[in-house]
Amino acid sequence: MTSSPRSVRVAIVGASGYSGEELVRLLLRHPHAELVAVTSRQSAGQTISQVFPRFATHPLARSLRFTDPDTAALAREAEVVFLALPHGVAAEYAIPLLRSGCRVIDLSADFRLKSAAVYREFYAHDHPAPDLLAQSVYGLPEVHAEAIRGARLVASPGCYPTSILLPTLPLLRDGLIRPSGIIADSLSGVSGAGRKAEVDYLFCECNESVRPYGVPKHRHLSEIEEQLSAAAGVPVVIQFTPHLIPVNRGILTTLYLAPSRPFATPDEVAALGAEIAASYARAYVGAPFVRVLEGKALPDTKNVVGTNVVEIAWRLDPRTGRLIVMSAEDNILKGASGQAVQSLNLMCGFPETSGLA
Amino acid sequence: MTSSPRSVRVAIVGASGYSGEELVRLLLRHPHAELVAVTSRQSAGQTISQVFPRFATHPLARSLRFTDPDTAALAREAEVVFLALPHGVAAEYAIPLLRSGCRVIDLSADFRLKSAAVYREFYAHDHPAPDLLAQSVYGLPEVHAEAIRGARLVASPGCYPTSILLPTLPLLRDGLIRPSGIIADSLSGVSGAGRKAEVDYLFCECNESVRPYGVPKHRHLSEIEEQLSAAAGVPVVIQFTPHLIPVNRGILTTLYLAPSRPFATPDEVAALGAEIAASYARAYVGAPFVRVLEGKALPDTKNVVGTNVVEIAWRLDPRTGRLIVMSAEDNILKGASGQAVQSLNLMCGFPETSGLA
Amino acid sequence: MTSSPRSVRVAIVGASGYSGEELVRLLLRHPHAELVAVTSRQSAGQTISQVFPRFATHPLARSLRFTDPDTAALAREAEVVFLALPHGVAAEYAIPLLRSGCRVIDLSADFRLKSAAVYREFYAHDHPAPDLLAQSVYGLPEVHAEAIRGARLVASPGCYPTSILLPTLPLLRDGLIRPSGIIADSLSGVSGAGRKAEVDYLFCECNESVRPYGVPKHRHLSEIEEQLSAAAGVPVVIQFTPHLIPVNRGILTTLYLAPSRPFATPDEVAALGAEIAASYARAYVGAPFVRVLEGKALPDTKNVVGTNVVEIAWRLDPRTGRLIVMSAEDNILKGASGQAVQSLNLMCGFPETSGLA
Amino acid sequence: MTSSPRSVRVAIVGASGYSGEELVRLLLRHPHAELVAVTSRQSAGQTISQVFPRFATHPLARSLRFTDPDTAALAREAEVVFLALPHGVAAEYAIPLLRSGCRVIDLSADFRLKSAAVYREFYAHDHPAPDLLAQSVYGLPEVHAEAIRGARLVASPGCYPTSILLPTLPLLRDGLIRPSGIIADSLSGVSGAGRKAEVDYLFCECNESVRPYGVPKHRHLSEIEEQLSAAAGVPVVIQFTPHLIPVNRGILTTLYLAPSRPFATPDEVAALGAEIAASYARAYVGAPFVRVLEGKALPDTKNVVGTNVVEIAWRLDPRTGRLIVMSAEDNILKGASGQAVQSLNLMCGFPETSGLA
Repeated sequence: MTSSPRSVRVAIVGASGYSGEELVRLLLRHPHAELVAVTSRQSAGQTISQVFPRFATHPLARSLRFTDPDTAALAREAEVVFLALPHGVAAEYAIPLLRSGCRVIDLSADFRLKSAAVYREFYAHDHPAPDLLAQSVYGLPEVHAEAIRGARLVASPGCYPTSILLPTLPLLRDGLIRPSGIIADSLSGVSGAGRKAEVDYLFCECNESVRPYGVPKHRHLSEIEEQLSAAAGVPVVIQFTPHLIPVNRGILTTLYLAPSRPFATPDEVAALGAEIAASYARAYVGAPFVRVLEGKALPDTKNVVGTNVVEIAWRLDPRTGRLIVMSAEDNILKGASGQAVQSLNLMCGFPETSGLA
Repeated sequence: MTSSPRSVRVAIVGASGYSGEELVRLLLRHPHAELVAVTSRQSAGQTISQVFPRFATHPLARSLRFTDPDTAALAREAEVVFLALPHGVAAEYAIPLLRSGCRVIDLSADFRLKSAAVYREFYAHDHPAPDLLAQSVYGLPEVHAEAIRGARLVASPGCYPTSILLPTLPLLRDGLIRPSGIIADSLSGVSGAGRKAEVDYLFCECNESVRPYGVPKHRHLSEIEEQLSAAAGVPVVIQFTPHLIPVNRGILTTLYLAPSRPFATPDEVAALGAEIAASYARAYVGAPFVRVLEGKALPDTKNVVGTNVVEIAWRLDPRTGRLIVMSAEDNILKGASGQAVQSLNLMCGFPETSGLA
Repeated sequence: MTSSPRSVRVAIVGASGYSGEELVRLLLRHPHAELVAVTSRQSAGQTISQVFPRFATHPLARSLRFTDPDTAALAREAEVVFLALPHGVAAEYAIPLLRSGCRVIDLSADFRLKSAAVYREFYAHDHPAPDLLAQSVYGLPEVHAEAIRGARLVASPGCYPTSILLPTLPLLRDGLIRPSGIIADSLSGVSGAGRKAEVDYLFCECNESVRPYGVPKHRHLSEIEEQLSAAAGVPVVIQFTPHLIPVNRGILTTLYLAPSRPFATPDEVAALGAEIAASYARAYVGAPFVRVLEGKALPDTKNVVGTNVVEIAWRLDPRTGRLIVMSAEDNILKGASGQAVQSLNLMCGFPETSGLA
Repeated sequence: MTSSPRSVRVAIVGASGYSGEELVRLLLRHPHAELVAVTSRQSAGQTISQVFPRFATHPLARSLRFTDPDTAALAREAEVVFLALPHGVAAEYAIPLLRSGCRVIDLSADFRLKSAAVYREFYAHDHPAPDLLAQSVYGLPEVHAEAIRGARLVASPGCYPTSILLPTLPLLRDGLIRPSGIIADSLSGVSGAGRKAEVDYLFCECNESVRPYGVPKHRHLSEIEEQLSAAAGVPVVIQFTPHLIPVNRGILTTLYLAPSRPFATPDEVAALGAEIAASYARAYVGAPFVRVLEGKALPDTKNVVGTNVVEIAWRLDPRTGRLIVMSAEDNILKGASGQAVQSLNLMCGFPETSGLA
């Protein structure tokens, strides 16, 4: 980090939701990013600090005002634009922004899939810009760093997919687990549902409540399976069950995996365990935001909330022949806005941890 | 309680909110009430158990269906009708129901005041039926039991007023505190805001948050001051600050009161304390739902949530010359639906604790 | 329920924990039980209402005092004794009480297994009374009602086992699922850890946190597998992962099961689904505390907390060939004290729902 | 910040509690502080990242190990030592550290009072080092910045006092409120009770619960009254009621104050309001961590948790003649560790916001 990186002008479209708010927080204090525009129809005209009082200590928050989204204006002011919009809407902005020469980091699901047919199956409408699917890069920096560096359009992964892919991909690539029969059981904080006025997400409906939802075919399955299939070299179909739990932030995922070879004796357990540990070490040795736990420690969302880190721990169970892998992340940071900024850092040649440490 | 009381036919108008749901729960299992109708525009056509799965073990919940509110039909079926509606709306139903001979227990603020002018000042519109204000009875059973027994229209008190009036009225009536300078600082669970789809009451907006609101002139002030004034025999103006805290249910009120006479020495403290204790004992000796704590115990909402009880404790502070009184209640039970059923019991000659123990 | 059942004298040993407190609540208001003794070393000498202010409205709570546990005294006073003690300790009380002619309902794990060897494997010490294992009855009323009716020693099931066994046993008995490969992923409220002064269960350590624990070999596995094996007729080994979530009460279990025959076409899905529905209907047609959800509804702990009900829903996933079954219960009621009272009702010939509705 | 400030070597004694953990977090990333030692009897021998996994991304956290506290070793290594110890214990460390030439920032109550007699009255034992009381500086940077800059011993204020003093002192100094009759009603998150294994602070005892405690004479009264008296020039006695609410962090204080002159007409309200606004502006114009809210905004702990900011809002109530002032802070940051680092910055000539923005 000897030469001081230049600064990049960035904008956020749709900055009034939870992911947008977190992008504002991260980019206000990013050492190499200059926040030049934030848009939100409902907040247009107000300063950042009027909408989000907790940022008021930052001078820019007291002067920069939300505007109505205008892609021509955005393209003039910003070099990189973050889209924190609902799926289906993001594409409408990405298309003109890309045409105007902006680089785009999209936090929605619009460009995460390579297949327009799979998009239609899971999102129930035609993809608005199928030609862009080929050039978009799936923004998981621990896996696609090189492609992200050169990308003009980054599709930042979903929160659940991040918590499932990072613990699974190395083992699949290294042939340590079978690609069939994967089960992912995930627990998410309520911010994952967004800042939407719906009775289901009222305090009294979520507090003292735990419930599964979207069983058995959640939309995030599509991008998870596409990424897993690419790593495995064969089509992968997984079981995924999300649950809503009463915390603001955090996803805890428990994965049930089948090792490729049997293990029963202590020696076999130790040998397979060493290979699993080595696989994770190879994959994440230089990864600043992946923490593979050792000893008796198990993931706990409270150890990662507020950070861009994903915690991973694993256990071999000789009773059942299964490998249990558990991960924890902050759904709004590593699961959304933090990971998007991590991609920004790669795209602009900044240190990967800039603004995230 | 030697003779078995007859049963009364009851209906609930507006049964899909938190107070309405609690009325359903209480009346389904009430030994002397027969629930004959529940209305809700949004749930019309569904059975109680479809709307509220937790009641499904009760046979009636599986057969009784929500209907659109129709006062003529209600008047044919029910002898007593509970109104769990927003203020302003309740009156529209009360008027024809009373005319048809029903007795009405209204949980809204519509009939709590004697003065239509005060109603207009605090609720910002003209009272829809000012002539009914004279005949309505303020449904605080520990204070107005006799009037409630004979009432045709009971205005069940607000949640905050209940938590403030029960600890204050005896001391005021007995002249132990001065009527001026009363401060009530109240903390309420989020269910007090109702089952409304508003961003302010989303889980992530309330969890890990505490905030005052409605400062300094909350609507409940009007009924609190009217009741206190009646007890004191002089106009009483109080300071009231409500706060929203992240619990589903419960109100904790801390009252700052000025005893009528000074106390400084241990003997004076003991003498005044004995009078305060005696005042509460006189007021609540036979009251099944008021618990004045002794010894070191202080109120805690978790000891009253799920019950119709209000807990009260008090401390004299010779350093400041003040009397601190604290109360805790379940805002949906003693603060709303439980208290309404308590009035039903009085109106129908049932034991006061029927369906509430 | 034509003849009025007589009343039974009951006692609770170890009544100061969460399960003990809930037993006190249930038995104080049970129409056919007379609570004659409650014991707790730490609370000896205090009345029930001093220890648990929320019961103070019940007259008996203001007069009955906690005593030190004394089996001779208990045997004189009580016909049925509930043991709400840690495992290993319960047996010390059960032995003399049974010898003195009391019937015992033990909420600990001491008598849940038939095999002393399995007990030693999972609980790390020799069983203190292996001869009693043969005569103890596993107190799951929906499965062992007949044996419970005649039992002198009932071993009330653990909270996790209840949430796993009730959804699984019918399908296993009817051969609809394979006995191998069962996965149970469970989420429990913090009361499951007991009222113990440990840093791990402090508010700030649990709030805004989700974490797995006891992976991969939790003690409850032993009783789950013993019951499943009995139903399947072959040894069953399952995968079980418990998680701690920030709610006071409630267990949500998600089960991953393999149907015995393939299903892919809509017709196959429908046919298999009909058999699953029929299996549950046969098993639980008269069961007052099992609610199999229909339509789009999924279990939610908030619909069962405060009740003795377990909610069950299931989904066939033709993409993966799996059956997903989800259950929700109150870990302290159906998972502990409520289920124990349900056994009491069977043992004494009371209606199964007495004191639980 | 033209000249780059040098770095200071700092140590933390008692780093395993909530305040200590937060000091670790702040000092690990402080641009001008080098953390050279952390002590904790219970964690001695472990690295910071073993005790606090969430800091593991910081290299120093993976190498620096907790040691047993040894004042001689600390004095050799560190220039400034933070004491995050219980009151009574802190003084034992402060005395030798000061003698060895270290500067000390004490987060306990040991050196907050000027009067050893008041200390004895409120803390029930003799002060262990009364001669140090004269030289200690009360570490409220917005009030005592000059003295803190030159201090060798800073007594960092309590969490409640900070939330009460910052909103009150300017008005008192400017004669806008009367020094008598002040009431402070405070709500605190559970972290304020420390990381202590006590049943009262278990998740299930705090969740879904709100309760007052320490009524009417909490220990923090002593330092609050001493500071208020100094500002008023007359002895000030206040009413203070703390409550425990189910959040991890945050204090919300509501103050009931009596303006020095009457106000009733809109003009009088406006004139007095202008003076209050001017008083706050004068006091906090350059204060980076005090935010006086404008318009309709009221303090909300969620807007300050995670920051070193205190939010203040006020309302004049012509109905009662009172001034209501509300404040919100993070009890562990502005109420403890953040404020201590703010003092460090002043003591060392660093920008006041270093490591806190």
